[in-house]
Order: sequence, then structure tokens, then C-alpha cells
Amino acid sequence: MGIKLHGLAMSTNTSRVMVCLHEKDVDFELVSVNVFASEHKLPPFLSKNPFGLIPALEDDGLTLFESRAITAYLAEKYKETGPDLIRKSDPKEAALVRVWAEVESQSYDPAVSPIIFEYLVSPFQHKEPNQSVIDASLEKLKNVLDVYEARLSETKNLAGNFFSLADLNHITSTHYFMKTPCAYMINDRPHVKAWWDDISSRPSFQKFADALTFGQN
Amino acid sequence: MGIKLHGLAMSTNTSRVMVCLHEKDVDFELVSVNVFASEHKLPPFLSKNPFGLIPALEDDGLTLFESRAITAYLAEKYKETGPDLIRKSDPKEAALVRVWAEVESQSYDPAVSPIIFEYLVSPFQHKEPNQSVIDASLEKLKNVLDVYEARLSETKNLAGNFFSLADLNHITSTHYFMKTPCAYMINDRPHVKAWWDDISSRPSFQKFADALTFGQN
Repeated sequence: MGIKLHGLAMSTNTSRVMVCLHEKDVDFELVSVNVFASEHKLPPFLSKNPFGLIPALEDDGLTLFESRAITAYLAEKYKETGPDLIRKSDPKEAALVRVWAEVESQSYDPAVSPIIFEYLVSPFQHKEPNQSVIDASLEKLKNVLDVYEARLSETKNLAGNFFSLADLNHITSTHYFMKTPCAYMINDRPHVKAWWDDISSRPSFQKFADALTFGQN
Repeated sequence: MGIKLHGLAMSTNTSRVMVCLHEKDVDFELVSVNVFASEHKLPPFLSKNPFGLIPALEDDGLTLFESRAITAYLAEKYKETGPDLIRKSDPKEAALVRVWAEVESQSYDPAVSPIIFEYLVSPFQHKEPNQSVIDASLEKLKNVLDVYEARLSETKNLAGNFFSLADLNHITSTHYFMKTPCAYMINDRPHVKAWWDDISSRPSFQKFADALTFGQN
């Protein structure tokens, strides 16, 4: 039985896993979860993820959730296929992949996600963006991106001169962030911009990037 | 040259790494960072962690930050020593360790940390706890702990019937949480309480638990 990914391509967390599956050229079935009807909060889905969040992945009798745990699982399982996303053979590079993947999870995502929500999800729900949330997030993001700019002036990618899980985990949220009026935060930092242009142009993402929309252009 | 851990034992993020080092029986030097004098925001420390956060770890020419990336690094480097924290030999168990370690990072910590801050750090700064922050965090934490209670009624530990990195990463924040008036959230859930009693009694933590204090009893 093949891999089933339960979720929605428009969700940054679901699509994060999709990018990883495409990098590894692994066939999978995307099983739609109707979050608009709260299907993710009901028993059949709750048996896959008790927290009621998408995505969940089923593979060979194993059910996993948390997108970053899933991308790490896939990177390990398919380490011989496609790019080496976790640098298994070099413990120091592997450690730096972990560090910068944690930075995405602990610092980058908590800064960009509220901005995406306010600008792209709130209007979809007929609400005005909350400017104080945006301002507080921009303040955090400025610090994060200043560090990224310095880092990416030394190495091509976050963990070193190689594309890794640390970069991959940024792609789908940044795609939405670049559709907000705050995209200048990345465009104005030349090394961050070059990194973004590079990682977002990967075929693993481009083959379905059009599916990442909340209805905006 | 031995391992140097730059930080403070009273910090949950520094002590998370200390528990891991003790589990693996690895000698290290704890190098104090005077956060009260903002030493972590100044150049010598910023070269170790550009985000200006403790801890940072130096090992054999490698400098790492992000406590969860460091515990994962140590668990991998010392996989032959002490408990098997990442279940290397069983890909399914290893995947579940990743899932529940992500749950700690994405759901548990964001719920307990504001409660710890309001009850234990704010008074230390002569401020009143912010009840609306506490209430919002308790609402999140209730959902998380209800899932933990169900999970821990099936398996002794979060990722399965074995102590792993997923459990370890909870210890130091929960230690502080249990000193707040919200400790009933854990005490009232018998399986969560038994799990907490078990993991908090490990010698790796007990040997320095007294160092985790913001000045309260």
C-alpha cells in the first residue's frame, strides 16, 4: 500500500510534506480533508492525528503527524534517493541542518505565520488585518531575517553550501508570505532574496505551487 | 577539548541540554552567561548564537544552538551510551520519537511557557501575572494534556514504551510548571501524572533539579 497524505495542498503544513515527497520522487495519494466542514476535528481523522490538525501521513501501517517530523522521517527513509536533505554522512553538517531546521520552527514560522494569517486568511474570512499583530510579527521577523542575511552571505543555504531540510521547511510558508505587502522584508535583503529565488524555483515545489492559494491572485 | 555549554542552569533551554548530557554521562563545562547584564546580546556570545539566546554548545570545533537541535545532536553522537533516546534501530519508533518531540515543541511548550513566565518570572520582575495570558494558555494546554492522557493510557511514554528524547525535552519546563498554581492540570490526569513522576525522578535531572529556580521556593 502506498503513502497516503491526508490534508490540503493549500495548507503550508501539508504542502511542506508534499515538497519533500516530490524531492524524493515518491508516489503518494493526497487524501483531501474538508477542514471547512471541520472534518479534521471529527473521529475518523482524529484517529490519525489526535490534535485535529492537518496533515497526517500513513505509510506501511505507521501513522504520523506534525509536518516537520514527517519531512524528517521521509528524509531519513529515502536518504539514498534525491538530494541528501539531512547530511547523514557528515555529523557536523547533520547537526547544522538540525539547528537551522529548529530556527525555522522556533523563530521564522512564528514570525511569518501571523502575517500570512492577517493578510491572506482574515480577508478570506471577511475580517480586517490586525495591524498590531502584523507590527509585532514584523519586529520579530526583522531580527530573524537580519541573521539570515548575514548567514546567507557566508553560505549558499542555511545549514551550509547545500540544500537541506532546513531550507525545504521554509518554502511553503514563504510562498504565501511573498504574496503579502511585507514581501519587501525578503526582497530588500539581497542574500535572503537570492536564497528564496533559488529554493522556490525547485521543481519539487514549482510542480504544484499554483495549488497554494487562499483564493487571492 | 571537552564540551562547553554556554548558558544558565535556571534556564529551561539550557537545562534541557544538561539533562541530555547527564543521560549520556558526558562530561561538560557549564560556562555561565550573565543574561542579567545582557551578555547574550553582545558580540562574544553572538558569535556562538547570532539570535542572542542561550544556550550554545561548543564541541570539537562545532558551535550549535537551539536546545532541541542540541539534544538531538547529542542523542545521535552518543547513541551507544546510556538510554537509546532516538530508537535508531527501529525506523517506526524513531519516527514516533520525532512526532512527539515536535508536539512538545509546537504545542506543549507554547502552552506552558507563558504560564511559567506569568507566575514565576513576572513576580521576579515585580509585575502582576497577566490573567488573560494565563487563561488563553490554559485553554491550549487542556487540549494538549487531554491528548497526552489518552496517549499515556496506551503507552508508558509518549513515543512508546520507552523513555526517549520526546519525554526528555519536556522535563525542565514541566518542573517549573509544577511550581505554578496550574500544576493541577497535570496532577488531575492520572496517566500524565504517573509519566511526570517517572521522568522527573530520573537521576539525570535530579542531580541538579535544585538549580532550576527563579528565586521562589
